Amino acid sequence: MIAQTPPMGWNSWDCYGAAVTEGIVRRNAEYMAEKLKPFGWEYVVVDIQWYQPTAVNHSYEPFSELTMDEYGRLTPAVNRFPSAANGAGFKPLADYVHSLGLKFGIHIMRGMPRMAAHRHLPVADSPYFCQNAANPNSVCAWNPDMYGLRCDLPEAAAYYNSIFRLYAEWGVDFVKCDDIAREYPHCRREIELISEACRSCGRDIVLSLSPGPAPLSEAEHLKANANMWRITDDFWDDWRLLKGMFERAEKWCIHAAPGHWPDADMLPVGALRQCENPDDRTHFTPAEQRTMMTLWCMMRSPLMIGAEMAKNDPFTLSLLTNAEVLDILKESWCAHPLYTTGEASAWIAPRKDGDGFYLALFNLGDKKKTVSAAPECAEGMKVKELWTGKAVRFTDGIHASVPAHDTVLYRFSAGSRK
Amino acid sequence: MIAQTPPMGWNSWDCYGAAVTEGIVRRNAEYMAEKLKPFGWEYVVVDIQWYQPTAVNHSYEPFSELTMDEYGRLTPAVNRFPSAANGAGFKPLADYVHSLGLKFGIHIMRGMPRMAAHRHLPVADSPYFCQNAANPNSVCAWNPDMYGLRCDLPEAAAYYNSIFRLYAEWGVDFVKCDDIAREYPHCRREIELISEACRSCGRDIVLSLSPGPAPLSEAEHLKANANMWRITDDFWDDWRLLKGMFERAEKWCIHAAPGHWPDADMLPVGALRQCENPDDRTHFTPAEQRTMMTLWCMMRSPLMIGAEMAKNDPFTLSLLTNAEVLDILKESWCAHPLYTTGEASAWIAPRKDGDGFYLALFNLGDKKKTVSAAPECAEGMKVKELWTGKAVRFTDGIHASVPAHDTVLYRFSAGSRK
Amino acid sequence: MIAQTPPMGWNSWDCYGAAVTEGIVRRNAEYMAEKLKPFGWEYVVVDIQWYQPTAVNHSYEPFSELTMDEYGRLTPAVNRFPSAANGAGFKPLADYVHSLGLKFGIHIMRGMPRMAAHRHLPVADSPYFCQNAANPNSVCAWNPDMYGLRCDLPEAAAYYNSIFRLYAEWGVDFVKCDDIAREYPHCRREIELISEACRSCGRDIVLSLSPGPAPLSEAEHLKANANMWRITDDFWDDWRLLKGMFERAEKWCIHAAPGHWPDADMLPVGALRQCENPDDRTHFTPAEQRTMMTLWCMMRSPLMIGAEMAKNDPFTLSLLTNAEVLDILKESWCAHPLYTTGEASAWIAPRKDGDGFYLALFNLGDKKKTVSAAPECAEGMKVKELWTGKAVRFTDGIHASVPAHDTVLYRFSAGSRK
Amino acid sequence: MIAQTPPMGWNSWDCYGAAVTEGIVRRNAEYMAEKLKPFGWEYVVVDIQWYQPTAVNHSYEPFSELTMDEYGRLTPAVNRFPSAANGAGFKPLADYVHSLGLKFGIHIMRGMPRMAAHRHLPVADSPYFCQNAANPNSVCAWNPDMYGLRCDLPEAAAYYNSIFRLYAEWGVDFVKCDDIAREYPHCRREIELISEACRSCGRDIVLSLSPGPAPLSEAEHLKANANMWRITDDFWDDWRLLKGMFERAEKWCIHAAPGHWPDADMLPVGALRQCENPDDRTHFTPAEQRTMMTLWCMMRSPLMIGAEMAKNDPFTLSLLTNAEVLDILKESWCAHPLYTTGEASAWIAPRKDGDGFYLALFNLGDKKKTVSAAPECAEGMKVKELWTGKAVRFTDGIHASVPAHDTVLYRFSAGSRK
Repeated sequence: MIAQTPPMGWNSWDCYGAAVTEGIVRRNAEYMAEKLKPFGWEYVVVDIQWYQPTAVNHSYEPFSELTMDEYGRLTPAVNRFPSAANGAGFKPLADYVHSLGLKFGIHIMRGMPRMAAHRHLPVADSPYFCQNAANPNSVCAWNPDMYGLRCDLPEAAAYYNSIFRLYAEWGVDFVKCDDIAREYPHCRREIELISEACRSCGRDIVLSLSPGPAPLSEAEHLKANANMWRITDDFWDDWRLLKGMFERAEKWCIHAAPGHWPDADMLPVGALRQCENPDDRTHFTPAEQRTMMTLWCMMRSPLMIGAEMAKNDPFTLSLLTNAEVLDILKESWCAHPLYTTGEASAWIAPRKDGDGFYLALFNLGDKKKTVSAAPECAEGMKVKELWTGKAVRFTDGIHASVPAHDTVLYRFSAGSRK
Repeated sequence: MIAQTPPMGWNSWDCYGAAVTEGIVRRNAEYMAEKLKPFGWEYVVVDIQWYQPTAVNHSYEPFSELTMDEYGRLTPAVNRFPSAANGAGFKPLADYVHSLGLKFGIHIMRGMPRMAAHRHLPVADSPYFCQNAANPNSVCAWNPDMYGLRCDLPEAAAYYNSIFRLYAEWGVDFVKCDDIAREYPHCRREIELISEACRSCGRDIVLSLSPGPAPLSEAEHLKANANMWRITDDFWDDWRLLKGMFERAEKWCIHAAPGHWPDADMLPVGALRQCENPDDRTHFTPAEQRTMMTLWCMMRSPLMIGAEMAKNDPFTLSLLTNAEVLDILKESWCAHPLYTTGEASAWIAPRKDGDGFYLALFNLGDKKKTVSAAPECAEGMKVKELWTGKAVRFTDGIHASVPAHDTVLYRFSAGSRK
Repeated sequence: MIAQTPPMGWNSWDCYGAAVTEGIVRRNAEYMAEKLKPFGWEYVVVDIQWYQPTAVNHSYEPFSELTMDEYGRLTPAVNRFPSAANGAGFKPLADYVHSLGLKFGIHIMRGMPRMAAHRHLPVADSPYFCQNAANPNSVCAWNPDMYGLRCDLPEAAAYYNSIFRLYAEWGVDFVKCDDIAREYPHCRREIELISEACRSCGRDIVLSLSPGPAPLSEAEHLKANANMWRITDDFWDDWRLLKGMFERAEKWCIHAAPGHWPDADMLPVGALRQCENPDDRTHFTPAEQRTMMTLWCMMRSPLMIGAEMAKNDPFTLSLLTNAEVLDILKESWCAHPLYTTGEASAWIAPRKDGDGFYLALFNLGDKKKTVSAAPECAEGMKVKELWTGKAVRFTDGIHASVPAHDTVLYRFSAGSRK
Repeated sequence: MIAQTPPMGWNSWDCYGAAVTEGIVRRNAEYMAEKLKPFGWEYVVVDIQWYQPTAVNHSYEPFSELTMDEYGRLTPAVNRFPSAANGAGFKPLADYVHSLGLKFGIHIMRGMPRMAAHRHLPVADSPYFCQNAANPNSVCAWNPDMYGLRCDLPEAAAYYNSIFRLYAEWGVDFVKCDDIAREYPHCRREIELISEACRSCGRDIVLSLSPGPAPLSEAEHLKANANMWRITDDFWDDWRLLKGMFERAEKWCIHAAPGHWPDADMLPVGALRQCENPDDRTHFTPAEQRTMMTLWCMMRSPLMIGAEMAKNDPFTLSLLTNAEVLDILKESWCAHPLYTTGEASAWIAPRKDGDGFYLALFNLGDKKKTVSAAPECAEGMKVKELWTGKAVRFTDGIHASVPAHDTVLYRFSAGSRK
């Protein structure tokens, strides 16, 4: 049973774009194993274009030569992932990550490499050929590498099965499939084929769909076919994007449950965009980072760190290691906003064990102000603010003074009244 | 503090349309006091056109002479409400309802009677005149009686204040204001004026807005200005309408909280449409009525009985007096669907006191089938089905055999594991 | 056979709004008879609210007492139209206009006076009552006087027949019916009833529908039911409105033909808005007025003068009495634009008698520029510019230097080549 | 000066799809030279995929190997066009067509062959490479061969210039560019680049854009950049498509003028779909074919014969050689419908020389009926029906009895009244 709670991990996109290398992955995995694993962090995910030998930043070069095997399956570029030499693929790197007690993930694009179709390569373990599986009209709007598949044909299932079998052999635990989550209705069947290939590959692999926004009207299809799916376009360290997430979180919150999690995307904290500028760090203030972590935890979104973690400062590390905050991911359920306006929001989340609930008060305005809420059943409870660790006296309602863009987060527990 | 839990009561629309009389109201109030009050039922509401002397069914006669006072305020038609004679208004009837330990409500249309404007009547306790308060372009699409008001002018506030003061004098506890809840954006200010008049009239009056569907995008405005608002057009005893409610309930469930309740409309049970056919009864099957009651309780909708209650049969009465089911309205919170498809739905609702939760499994298909759910934290709990009262053994997930259109409803409690 | 060429006349709206009086009408009729009749001008039209005793400008007073007869038919306010006293209606004024060799027109709103319905008046020469003909939900968005009719009922046809019979008795030659031309689809049947009442009233009455924009998709319905219909909202002396007319003219030009004319609305020239400010004159430059007159003539729009004509200056009079320009209305057909951009437009119109064609070149930009066109069959023709009267040498194409917002207008004739 | 009247010719699509061969082209050119040239027919056009060696019918094979030169420019498949051997391209075939006194045309898709980009070929006579000109995201929705170009880069202009120079060398007189006419707004710049390449290639080449419907809102852009453009999706021998053309013709008729012609697409007459079934002939009745020819001529659409002309029967030949009907293309202007309903339509077109006009009456209904029109200036004219050649007596209006789907077409001439 996978993804019984929201997956937590690191992904290379925010810090290295399409240009991540084996050394970077190992360094971040080691950091995670040492500093973050005790708090629940476990996935180490290599993002897009690990098969492109000449990638240098967040952009893509059209018509370039991609590394692939004789069956049109992409393989790691050996100049970037030396352990993949001699056809080893990601197995050595996955083994290393596993040796640290962590899990290993990769990014894929839906479809197959365009050259596999133009070169008429065979599909592995099948009587089929790539040129019959590929759909020449199905191309991604932002990446030039792939053709989507003709999902009404058995050739398409054969191809997707062939790649997931390979990933299972490598020891992959997590696949982030891109160019698909918002591509309804035309990719509906493609999502099903990928889901079936993932479930039948012989290994437990979390299936994550990108990019968003996935359509809310397809919530049940997404819940049935994926473990997580993006509810937004790429999220970056821009306050407008963070403020905008409250509306999306409100719409999706009721669909979070074991096995299927609406995904608010990366946590752009710490050192980011390293391939463009090694000195770049998140543009979010500490207040905004608290707001982000609180909202992601209250809505039980998966958490994926975007930082080059070796450059974490004490604040960044503290943000990622507040055990009582991270507990919300595992101990709460049925969260929802009490209200959201352009100025403020309040969210509530009962604990599954019945011992009280969590209440978050967000100041979405640009000035310090009082944010209030009157939870229904708080009478006589003990209250603690989780970012500061301080006890709070509760009488009737909560009226908190909150700085601009910041958040206060309370744990209400029944202790004192029982 | 009013409407701290969803209002429960009876409304004359489903059984008598525009033609209800004082005798009918008294009879139903007496029934409620005797049979339903112990279960939380309390409001007795007189629906539309109590000021129309010649109303006979569910339709409206244009350009008819309405009963009103010298300030353009509608008053009960004395031929239908004899106790209103000599300018007594609804006070005698309200007093009688109060004497039974119940509360009294009325229906109004937004705006003022057209004739009040054409006759240039004064607005009570003000220097203003009706023809300056009325907006000649603001008419209801389905009822010919009223003009909406020019809400940018002080004349409009003066008129609304004048009618709510009258209702307070009569002893009204509940006002259902019609032709307004779905009339965004042009009635946004009119909603605010009515809300202000209601709050400042000197008496606690529940404000209910009709008809639906109110727009979801206005949830915060509705929560700030009304105690309940319709989320659908008129609901009647038609399975398609009931099935369609699941989608609306899903969208609105997170907005239910003390003081403001999304309203799924009347409960069309028992004897209905009495002015058209005294033998008519609900077209819902018992299974469908269980489904309706369960969904309304799980989403914490207000409950308004549509029946001529004097003709309740044992099944109807049992439906309205299942204490453990009605408890959900008061004891649960944070309810939401686990899933909803064209075939089935599951809803979950934690208890505010932390002692477990409620789980409802709905068969929305036309054949008996197994409906399943795997609630997150049910391990080791005691389980009881509330419509049958039977204990259920829970192991891993719940897999219930449910007849077509029917529902099973479980109370999970922690008793056995503590 | 009426309206075999586009109607030409004067209308009181632009200069007197809802407040025109008998003296004004007589004065302008006399002016027309003396100065304009030889050039084809003939209709004298009294615009809106001639039945409102207290109208003073371009705005409307809600819930005011309108002058009407015992059958709910509006009659001229005697304080404004003294000759209407003693139930004479508009007959004396129409007789006077006829005595000048001109034709007489009035404005009406679709529907009936609201008070006629509320007072339950009988419909003339019928067994019906007004309250059954009126539709309480059908009100105009910008005028408070009327209810539209329930056009599915015989009461509605009876009412419309009753008013057109009255207009025929008065000697009315032209009816401008308002609140209807853009009210598709809900007023489709109302247009048909009014058209039928007009055709069967016993007198030739031109039927004009307002306000626009009428929907292009209803062109055939309009052609079948009206003699002219507005293709724009109210047109005033604002360059943006004039520039915008080119797009509408292009869409509608193919629908102009004997008996049915797309109407570009009033000519706001000379002294305007006299009830607001007696010194006010058109804001159009002379160049813009030439552009307007040229476009209206090329597209064969009806021409309705908006000025208080007694205050015409020489330029205004010259604009309205250029016989060769006005000839286009009667002598051309099949006009259409050769092109229209944001900067310029060219229109062409063959002559019906085969003797060449007209070409107009419009500078729609804000600077003087060369505007060009190469008409298909101009070889060897004689060319004359009609606003200046000068002959022009044509070789290959036309390349005219045109001031900002101005127009040159050529008559090509075959004379020289035959 | 090209396309001063609407181009007339033959195109291989309707009869041979993607599979036309040199022998077929020569045979049809010879037929045209012998039988049709005297009536104005002159263009012989080779349609899509002349560069695909294995094309056999109207469908496309993805990822197939296309014939191209070392600069990524498609060349005729030698197995289908033997005279193209040894790099001769279409020059020998064009020379042959020219030797018959006719003109030669080809079809192209916008963009470049996908393989030219993936193989990194150079762009002829330039420092650029194909992979930098191609846009990997710009693919056709219905054909798998090409990538659109990155029209903001000089590489794109260089590539388009390189292919038009080649076509000029071959002696091409007409280029039908596909996947572009309805691709606004994203292909706006691509249309301009192709237009510029065409005009600057050193040879007069008619530029035709497909497929439709091109957007009416872009009429001026189309007129400025192309000689003809499709106003519909592919037109075939189906009455519903023919009936639907009346609405499109009405919208576009004012935009027909020398140099730029709205194009109603192929004339599917005679022997069609020969590669699928050699016995197949048009499904249009003779009446429908008269209706089509009449409408195309009245609106001055280009005329492109779809038949395998060697199989023309006498009726087909007569349809294509009625000189008086075809004269309309060259002698009329300013055509437009008088009216169009679901049942009938009338079109009028003055003659440029002033000698009367044409009037067409179409029965669009499924039963014989009388179709009428009253043209404005027909008094005293001589009238002849052009499909039968019979003189007609005209009195007041025209009231013609027309069989279902058929047409009568009159020439009104001034002869008799002068």
